[in-house]
Amino acid sequence: MSLALEIFGDKWTLLILRDFIFFENRHFNEFVTIENISTNILTDRLNRLIKNGILRKEIDNNNSSSFLYSLTKKGLHLIPIVLEIYHWGANFTKDNNAEPDFSNRFEKEKRDVLQEIIEKLKTTHNIV
Amino acid sequence: MSLALEIFGDKWTLLILRDFIFFENRHFNEFVTIENISTNILTDRLNRLIKNGILRKEIDNNNSSSFLYSLTKKGLHLIPIVLEIYHWGANFTKDNNAEPDFSNRFEKEKRDVLQEIIEKLKTTHNIV
Repeated sequence: MSLALEIFGDKWTLLILRDFIFFENRHFNEFVTIENISTNILTDRLNRLIKNGILRKEIDNNNSSSFLYSLTKKGLHLIPIVLEIYHWGANFTKDNNAEPDFSNRFEKEKRDVLQEIIEKLKTTHNIV
Repeated sequence: MSLALEIFGDKWTLLILRDFIFFENRHFNEFVTIENISTNILTDRLNRLIKNGILRKEIDNNNSSSFLYSLTKKGLHLIPIVLEIYHWGANFTKDNNAEPDFSNRFEKEKRDVLQEIIEKLKTTHNIV
C-alpha cells in the first residue's frame, strides 16, 4: 500500500484524478483551475502519473498546439478510490460542494455507478 | 472532496489508517514502526485525525502510562477508501507485500469483506 501511495497518495494528485472522473477535464489549462494548485506542482504530478502508467499524454487532435491527457487501464482502476473519497467528503464534511444525488445513488448502487463511469471513460479516453 | 483530502489526503495519514485496519495497531509506539515516519509527523497526523473526529485518544485501561487510539464512527467510514487503495496496490505495484488471498477475496466479495472488517472494528474499538 505504501508503494501505491508514493504514486498518488497526496491531495493534489487525487484532485487531478477527480477532475478526470467528474469534470472530464483533459487539458493542462483545465487542471490549473484546481483550487490553489501551482503550475509547478501540477506539472510534477501529471509527469509522475505518466511515469507510473496512470496517464497518457498525446497531441490533441482537435488542437495540435495542445496536449490531451487520458487515463490508462491502470488509471481506470483508481476510480473506486476517488469515488469512495468523494462519497466520504459528501457525508462527513460541512459546506462541501458534492452532488447530493450522486452520493445517495452511490450509497445504494455502488457497483452500477462504478460500472457506468468506467464504461463512459473507456470510450472517451479510448481505453482498450 | 478537497475538504476531505485536507483531513486525510496524505501518505502518512493513510498509512496510519491502514495500521488500524490491517494490523490492529492502537498505540503510538506501534505506529512509529511505519516505514520512515518521524515522530513529529506521526504526532501531527494523529492530532489532526482527533481534531477532525476520526480518532479518539484515551488512557489505556491495560497500561495507564500509555494512550489507546480508537477509530470513531466517522473514522470507520474511511475503511472503504483504505481497502480500495490496498487492493489497487496489490494489483498494480511490483514487489508489494499485500496479502494475495485478501485481495482476491476483496475483488469477488467486496461488500462482505467490508462488513466483516467494520463489525470487527466496531467491537474492538468500542464504537456504538
